[in-house]
Amino acid sequence: MFKKKDIFFTTLEAMGDTLVEATEYFAAGVSDLSNLTAFAKRMKEMESQCDQFTHTILKELNKTFITPIEREDIMALTTSLDDVLDGIEACASRFEMYNVREKDEYITLFADVIVRSTHQIRKAIQLLTQKKLLAMREHTIAINELENQADDLLRVSVTSLFANVKDPIELIKRKEIYERLEQTTDYCEDVANILESIIMRNS
Amino acid sequence: MFKKKDIFFTTLEAMGDTLVEATEYFAAGVSDLSNLTAFAKRMKEMESQCDQFTHTILKELNKTFITPIEREDIMALTTSLDDVLDGIEACASRFEMYNVREKDEYITLFADVIVRSTHQIRKAIQLLTQKKLLAMREHTIAINELENQADDLLRVSVTSLFANVKDPIELIKRKEIYERLEQTTDYCEDVANILESIIMRNS
Amino acid sequence: MFKKKDIFFTTLEAMGDTLVEATEYFAAGVSDLSNLTAFAKRMKEMESQCDQFTHTILKELNKTFITPIEREDIMALTTSLDDVLDGIEACASRFEMYNVREKDEYITLFADVIVRSTHQIRKAIQLLTQKKLLAMREHTIAINELENQADDLLRVSVTSLFANVKDPIELIKRKEIYERLEQTTDYCEDVANILESIIMRNS
Repeated sequence: MFKKKDIFFTTLEAMGDTLVEATEYFAAGVSDLSNLTAFAKRMKEMESQCDQFTHTILKELNKTFITPIEREDIMALTTSLDDVLDGIEACASRFEMYNVREKDEYITLFADVIVRSTHQIRKAIQLLTQKKLLAMREHTIAINELENQADDLLRVSVTSLFANVKDPIELIKRKEIYERLEQTTDYCEDVANILESIIMRNS
Repeated sequence: MFKKKDIFFTTLEAMGDTLVEATEYFAAGVSDLSNLTAFAKRMKEMESQCDQFTHTILKELNKTFITPIEREDIMALTTSLDDVLDGIEACASRFEMYNVREKDEYITLFADVIVRSTHQIRKAIQLLTQKKLLAMREHTIAINELENQADDLLRVSVTSLFANVKDPIELIKRKEIYERLEQTTDYCEDVANILESIIMRNS
Repeated sequence: MFKKKDIFFTTLEAMGDTLVEATEYFAAGVSDLSNLTAFAKRMKEMESQCDQFTHTILKELNKTFITPIEREDIMALTTSLDDVLDGIEACASRFEMYNVREKDEYITLFADVIVRSTHQIRKAIQLLTQKKLLAMREHTIAINELENQADDLLRVSVTSLFANVKDPIELIKRKEIYERLEQTTDYCEDVANILESIIMRNS
């Protein structure tokens, strides 16, 4: 099915690497929170880098006749990877916008789930470029399980918030950050679903 | 166009039944609210049952060459039905997460619209499996009208909330529940749109 | 590739005109805010008009064999144009629902970005119907840049909100309006992405 490693696969792998790098940076950042401006700025840079990869893929799709997998699958996968980085970047920027400086155990737990999800995404993309499609399924399943964990975490964290936080503005801030973190795992699940459909159509 | 009733149609019908059951359970639950934990737990069980049906369909799509309607349509329909149940389950869990114990006439009205929508969805799916495609349109139109009703209801209920509720945290809770209820009717409309496109492509 | 100007192109152009008209009306409205009911009502009328255009296109797709561009592209484009008007109408209705009567410089800035986006959309649609596909790209790029501006505006406006507004209910109102305005530019970007994929597949 596939020819030699091409520009699409090379760029998708680079996106996988950037996702891991960005989410690990995010996880480190939320255990610090001493310089929110620098934190948001660096996350934005990584998001822009990911936008560049997206742009590269779209440009190549425009001038390439034969693609290693269907064009629609490349586009859908690229967009979904970009959504993950947009999601985590949007979380990071909320710390700055809301001036959130106090650490939060739930945010740490969410960040850990997201880091583990992007590691699974990166591994799945590597297998895709190695034409090991069926081996990808282990990782798509793991991503789905991590999304379930984030779902449980949202229930627990928001319940705790409403039970304990009496300042409405503080509650609004934390609630939105929790929800955006959980949403980022939904974007990871979207990646997994697209990978699943690529497996389905090509094996 | 269709062969005999197959695993896809049987499972889609079961999803339709589960949607009706879950939304009727929800409607009964919101007029009680005495045991929020049991309420959220039972809704979660029905959502998991629906996930199982989704899983069955995806697994069958993987090993089946000939499907009664296009594979993409089966996937889109399955996903959209699953979204409806996810939506109503998310509403139910908010009662527990936010500890909302006081009844609310708007919630009752929303629940009623949603129950009527899932009855229309079930009927439309039954017609699909009976190959009566054009007869489905009556029900997709009804689903769209119910979504419009929910839209009006959201305007009225949120206006009333901002006019009458002075406790910001109480306002946050009710507003989100109203919005998620309205969103559930949007998911029903997505089902209707997918059914419409199936009618369009097959008649 | 294209025949003479047909019902699809005529209706898409009418949708483009309605988008410009509605967003210009919106921009004028938010600098006044003296009659919120009339404002929301007129916006709703324009949204209904756009729904009629959508309905016309879907009905024609049902009875037409040969379409000037792929049916899926016509549907996706129609739906995305409709989403833009739904988005701006939802903003307008929040002024009434939340009884927001005080002018706001950020809302004025957002409205301006949205007006400029719909002008770009209208221009791109006109080029589509004139078969000048490559010339559309200038406008899709402009729409993407305007979306970036709205993104920056959201950061600045929400940061200002949390820094300055102490009344939680006032904060909830403004925050949601800012977010819905920014989301409307996301819908404009969706239009641009669909136009990009039409260019890609047809040139």
